[in-house]
Amino acid sequence: MCVPGTLETVRAQIEAEEPPDVDVDVPRLSRRTALLAGAATALGTAIPGRALAGSAGRSGMRLADLTHVFSEDFPLFPGAPPTSRTTAVTVQADGFYAQQWTLSEHACTHMDAPAHFVAGGRTTPQLRLSELVAPVVVIDIARRAAGDPDTVVTPNDLRAFERRYGRIPRNAVVCMHSGWQARIGSTESYRNADAQQVMHFPGFGKAAVEWLLTRRSIRGIGVDTLSLDPGNSKTFDSHVTVLKANRYGIENLRGLKAIPARGATIYLGLIPWRGGSGGPCRAFAAW
Amino acid sequence: MCVPGTLETVRAQIEAEEPPDVDVDVPRLSRRTALLAGAATALGTAIPGRALAGSAGRSGMRLADLTHVFSEDFPLFPGAPPTSRTTAVTVQADGFYAQQWTLSEHACTHMDAPAHFVAGGRTTPQLRLSELVAPVVVIDIARRAAGDPDTVVTPNDLRAFERRYGRIPRNAVVCMHSGWQARIGSTESYRNADAQQVMHFPGFGKAAVEWLLTRRSIRGIGVDTLSLDPGNSKTFDSHVTVLKANRYGIENLRGLKAIPARGATIYLGLIPWRGGSGGPCRAFAAW
Repeated sequence: MCVPGTLETVRAQIEAEEPPDVDVDVPRLSRRTALLAGAATALGTAIPGRALAGSAGRSGMRLADLTHVFSEDFPLFPGAPPTSRTTAVTVQADGFYAQQWTLSEHACTHMDAPAHFVAGGRTTPQLRLSELVAPVVVIDIARRAAGDPDTVVTPNDLRAFERRYGRIPRNAVVCMHSGWQARIGSTESYRNADAQQVMHFPGFGKAAVEWLLTRRSIRGIGVDTLSLDPGNSKTFDSHVTVLKANRYGIENLRGLKAIPARGATIYLGLIPWRGGSGGPCRAFAAW
Repeated sequence: MCVPGTLETVRAQIEAEEPPDVDVDVPRLSRRTALLAGAATALGTAIPGRALAGSAGRSGMRLADLTHVFSEDFPLFPGAPPTSRTTAVTVQADGFYAQQWTLSEHACTHMDAPAHFVAGGRTTPQLRLSELVAPVVVIDIARRAAGDPDTVVTPNDLRAFERRYGRIPRNAVVCMHSGWQARIGSTESYRNADAQQVMHFPGFGKAAVEWLLTRRSIRGIGVDTLSLDPGNSKTFDSHVTVLKANRYGIENLRGLKAIPARGATIYLGLIPWRGGSGGPCRAFAAW
């Protein structure tokens, strides 16, 4: 039970602290660079960061944050050890300021590495950098999820996506946008458990994960919910399927509605936690 | 004191666990994409990730990891709370595996945000994504540091760099490569403290930081040591100078020798720690 208004206050605090969804550099391309970018677009080749590495310094590149603020009151999967933070030193008393954190590897926006469900599977430092930079596509099931929280991503959703946007690229990260981000300010609403403590939120269906692995050779899957599987899963089939295939999952993403359904690149700034079963990760997209 | 051989064993373990310095995708560009990339190079426009976002899926992009494995025995600045990890659940006993961590925001490869030294300064979630993707340059003082651990980066080093490689771009992250990474397996060697507990390792001199801020409008500075300032600093002038300018620092980088002195882009996957004075961060470079 909460004092009335508490959830709303916490939600407003979290939302106020979130960085903006999209961060656009002011375009300042030379005529030659602009022509080049136009040519690239005409060829269907996206060029994230095209001018950043050179002396131009700025470009028309768009960046979108896919990561929630890492906080002690972020909703956790039931049973996960709580997140906590303490102030270790302050500018006033010590001359500088720092916090100390205690956290589960599966708190906030984070990755599930193969070792999370596979004994002897790869841990976070064993994922190669080239696995952490990938084409990203977004499967939007938000409308269906609004009416049915137990809905899952199906092969039909993937075929419908490809009819509209083109083939899912090889080595892509395929993300589910379910609209669940709107519930993030309340653990109760984000978990959406019934009287029997069975949770109800959307996820990937096993058939869709198998389709993506075998037909599109993906890098991994991502969700804007607490779990790759739907909340009512007892067998974690999508977890097991993607992690046994030596690929990864990303949970508690945000901002998926702000990026193109196809054509952006995802950057996964995964801390290489020693022996990590996964762990907190800064995810963002560029296009 | 250690059992003889302990330091060597720990060093070998850390090194064995580090991901490779450079991770190169096999070039597999279409003729049109290759022509486009050639045109871009001719125009002096680097294109990191140029083919990754499109359907090509792979490119000749090079990625270099600048991040050490996050571990409980990584050398800390004296006084920082220790890092620890515990196994929370295992695949054998619980069906899935996860660890729990306790950490200082200033452990392993991490960022110092303005709030670290400036009361009311920006915390990690307040840094914009476009500040975390930037041109990177590497000032190599390794030869001098091998003979004099108290040496610092000076304006002369920056001028010599520009004569050889061209002007430091606006909004760049300027990194010191001192060769200190070779000492990472031993806290004693990495801190290099004398009998009076004064540490001796290289850093940025205040004059170089002022030069970079006022003449080149940089985003931040990075080092392959425990501190932006040299180890023997009592006043933390380089910290204060860069953080009061509302820019950031990155400490304990690795792999700086593996990237071009100029022309790469740095990606800083900073976890948006709530209220963070900075914090662990996955740094990598692409070119």
